[in-house]
Order: sequence, then structure tokens, then C-alpha cells
Amino acid sequence: MTRPSLSPTPRSTIQRGKKHAVTDRAALDAVLDAGLICHLSVVADGAPLVLPTGYGRDGDTLYLHGSSGAHTMRAAAGTDVCVAVTLLDGIVYARAVFNFSVNYRSAVIHGVAVPVTEPAAKLHGLRVLTEHLAPGSWDHAREPNARELAATTLLALDLTEASVKIRSGPPADDDEDVAAGTAWAGVLPVRSQWGAPEPCPLLPEDIAVPEHVTNRGW
Amino acid sequence: MTRPSLSPTPRSTIQRGKKHAVTDRAALDAVLDAGLICHLSVVADGAPLVLPTGYGRDGDTLYLHGSSGAHTMRAAAGTDVCVAVTLLDGIVYARAVFNFSVNYRSAVIHGVAVPVTEPAAKLHGLRVLTEHLAPGSWDHAREPNARELAATTLLALDLTEASVKIRSGPPADDDEDVAAGTAWAGVLPVRSQWGAPEPCPLLPEDIAVPEHVTNRGW
Repeated sequence: MTRPSLSPTPRSTIQRGKKHAVTDRAALDAVLDAGLICHLSVVADGAPLVLPTGYGRDGDTLYLHGSSGAHTMRAAAGTDVCVAVTLLDGIVYARAVFNFSVNYRSAVIHGVAVPVTEPAAKLHGLRVLTEHLAPGSWDHAREPNARELAATTLLALDLTEASVKIRSGPPADDDEDVAAGTAWAGVLPVRSQWGAPEPCPLLPEDIAVPEHVTNRGW
Repeated sequence: MTRPSLSPTPRSTIQRGKKHAVTDRAALDAVLDAGLICHLSVVADGAPLVLPTGYGRDGDTLYLHGSSGAHTMRAAAGTDVCVAVTLLDGIVYARAVFNFSVNYRSAVIHGVAVPVTEPAAKLHGLRVLTEHLAPGSWDHAREPNARELAATTLLALDLTEASVKIRSGPPADDDEDVAAGTAWAGVLPVRSQWGAPEPCPLLPEDIAVPEHVTNRGW
């Protein structure tokens, strides 16, 4: 199936830094799949509210979840939300303060967060979320029971209205600053990696760390 | 000077996961000082909008900046904003899917973003921002000129209304799941570090990477 390009609406059209805009669906998927957490923004009592939260992607659907009692989940359910997933790749040192920047991959999604309540659909969405956060864990750990399902709100967000921005490479300085040659310029990369797994102290000592944890790619 | 504890208002009072709430001003400062970018949320045309952006802290003031033409900056100036700084420290693998979590340090600030236009104050705020993003750079690089200052919007946000949440340590599973002993549980730490500096290709080859870049702590 051919997937369409991102079709910007006015609010998902990148106004600044257009040269960093990417309109390829695959780029959106790649940013979402590479991130671990998102920032979910809602309007609560007329004011903006943004909180970090977990997510997972299945095709053109982004799943978000949280405690059923959480203020943000209640404020988000059935209303307009905005979700950002940001990967910081480096600090861009320029010759002029004005041209300092960061290298990054950024996805911003707008849409209505629709509560998912049908049991099979909810289990599916939670599986997607869990497998995004911790691949291989859904079949390894105990599945949610009825009480736990009730205590969890699952929201689905369509990925139709989204924008992607990516910046990479060296600083963009003015010719005069390059010619002056008075400052260093370049990129200091930011790298993320896994540390050594830290087993729960309540585990029996002879339990090995499973492969889905030890072999997790970044 | 003794700084007061964080004094929660209704919207900055942590409703869920209260056990992870921290009300120490020093904890707020530590999270903000450890982060590199924030997520700035505003209400634009009645809908939430969240974007990643740079910031810097000076005492009880958080500075944000962006292009003067940026939609977010225009929407944020003089109005309620919400800013989140999130540090992801690890993935928490639990024995039950329901108890999967992340270890993190999170700060959320509410307030009115006040434009800073007085030239000396603006230069000060931009210095704070630049030194947060790239310590040692303000005195190394060329300062902003009048045109660049005009092209930059600087916003100041008071840190009075803020909340901090920190989760660390192993998963919190139910006793029955611990006793069943059928799944591995523990934390897979997430580590961030600097890569090797990548000099701008336009630099003369004999220019050494300066100490404020090579010696940057994490």
C-alpha cells in the first residue's frame, strides 16, 4: 500500500525553518519509532498543559496511555491534543551566537485523542505501547487483568495531521564570520545508549537477564 | 538567601504518582540545569501546540527564545504557557505489563511568558540561554548584532509555579507477581553522552577544538 505524503493543514505547516521540513511519511514513522517518550499537550481550564508520557505507533495510529485518574488523560480524552516526539542529536556551535542551534529530529502531531475502550482494541493498543517501550515484554510479563485495564486510559491519535523537522550537519554561519575565523564551529553530538541492566533486588539471584533486554538495540 | 519550597497551585499540584513528587526548589533547579531542551506548550487558535525549544535558567527565571517570526513565539508572548523539561533515566521492566514504567526527572512550569525587550536585559537572557546550551560559548563566539537581536524573541518565565516529579529505582510489582517469579524485572538505564566533536568543514584544518567543547561535562 502506498502511503500518502504528509498533507499539511495550516497548523501542521512548518512556518519557520522550512528548509528543515520533511514531508515523507516514512520520516514521521522513523522519528516516532526512534523516540521513547513523547510530550502530550492539552488545554486544561483554558491554559496549556504539557506532560511527558509513553506512546506507541501502529501504522497510522499513535497510542497514548495513562492512569484513568490522571488529570491530563481526562483533559485529553475526546479533545484536541498536540504531541511532540523530539530526538536531540547534537549541539551546533557556531561562529556567531545567533547561529547556535541543535541537531534534532522532531515530529509534531495534531488531532483528537479518541479513548479506546473496547477490550480487544484496548489490549491491542496497550501491547503496541508496551512493545514500543520495552520490546519483547508483552509476551514475557503478565498481561493486564480487568482491574488494571480499568485503571488505564488508552487514547488513539490519528497520524494524518503531522509535521516533521530534521536538522543535521554543521552550523550555518554568515560568510563574514567564516572568513573572520575567530571562533571554533562544529557539532558536539549527543549519543544515547543503554546502561547495564539493573535486576530488581527482589529477583532470585540465579535469574538471567533475558535476551529481549540484553540485546535491545538503540 | 533561603529559597522557599515549591508552593503548588491547583494546576501545579501533582495529582497522580504523588509519591514521586518533589517540593524542593533545589530539585527543580537541578532538573532544569541538567536538561538541554524543553517542550513549550501554548494555546494557539484554541488548540494546544507543543514544540521543542531551547532554554536557560537564571535564578528563578527561565528564559525561552525563538525566531521573532515563529508562530509559537507569537502565541506564547504575554500569555499562559506550560514548559516541560524531562530527563529519561531508564526503562523499568516489571513482572506485570501494568507496572512497566520509566525512571525520569521531570519539571513542569506554568506561567505567563513575558517578552524581554530592553536591550541589556535581552542580551543577558540570551547569554543565559547560550551558556546553558553551550557553556563557554558567549565569550568565544560573536555577540548578536542589532539585526540578529531584532530577529530573536526572548521570553521570561517565572519559576514560581512549578512541579517536579522524579522516579528512580526498581519496578513496584504486586506481591503475587514477585512470588510467581515468572518474569525478569529490573531497570535498563538510559545514558546520554557527548560524541566526538565534529568540526565545521569550513574551519581551517589547524584550528584545535577549544576546551569549553572538549571538556564539557554531561
